[in-house]
Amino acid sequence: MASDADNFNILIGPDLPTRRYKPGEVVFREGDRGGELFVIKRGNVEVRTGNRRLETLGENEIFGEMALIDDSPRSATVVALTDVTLAPITESQYLFLVRHTPYFALKVMRVLVHRLRTQNKAVT
Amino acid sequence: MASDADNFNILIGPDLPTRRYKPGEVVFREGDRGGELFVIKRGNVEVRTGNRRLETLGENEIFGEMALIDDSPRSATVVALTDVTLAPITESQYLFLVRHTPYFALKVMRVLVHRLRTQNKAVT
Repeated sequence: MASDADNFNILIGPDLPTRRYKPGEVVFREGDRGGELFVIKRGNVEVRTGNRRLETLGENEIFGEMALIDDSPRSATVVALTDVTLAPITESQYLFLVRHTPYFALKVMRVLVHRLRTQNKAVT
Repeated sequence: MASDADNFNILIGPDLPTRRYKPGEVVFREGDRGGELFVIKRGNVEVRTGNRRLETLGENEIFGEMALIDDSPRSATVVALTDVTLAPITESQYLFLVRHTPYFALKVMRVLVHRLRTQNKAVT
């Protein structure tokens, strides 16, 4: 079982507003300007770039953190595969979490490193 | 000019012990177990995987953070190109910096996102 420190939904707390999406709905598109990252509270999403499927993400995983961290356009398109409930985290909430919940920062870093290692394998 | 918050050498402070390397010396090899990340205080290093050169890094840049963050073996080999001075950061120092210097965590996240975007471009 994952520890509390590994659970994004526990780290961000229960009180954030959520947004719901139906299967096939687009959360954001590659190239969009992005000011939020998303924690998946329920359901599955697919991450795509061009026609390529990069990965499927589920409950307690995050996406959209790249555009928030370096203020660049979205690097991929994200589409709901099922009924999905997301908790959006704005830049100011993200900065607050990094400052006051170090485990949040450590967990985001682990997600980024996991994505780097997955990409390394795809390249080499 | 980079702000203080963007300067790893200022973020880690002036008091950490350093290690010196001569041109051609290997800092670590792909597959090694790694318990430190490194801040470059002086000189240049080359990051390689197999026979492929990934990038050249210089003063005030970091490397070796991936193995520290997810406790996996080194994903690349790093070799000194010039006389190099490095400040090694152990896991406990890294955790201390993340907890007490949020800018350090934010900066490490920006480095990871930069590497992800660079790799995305190499793939797509």
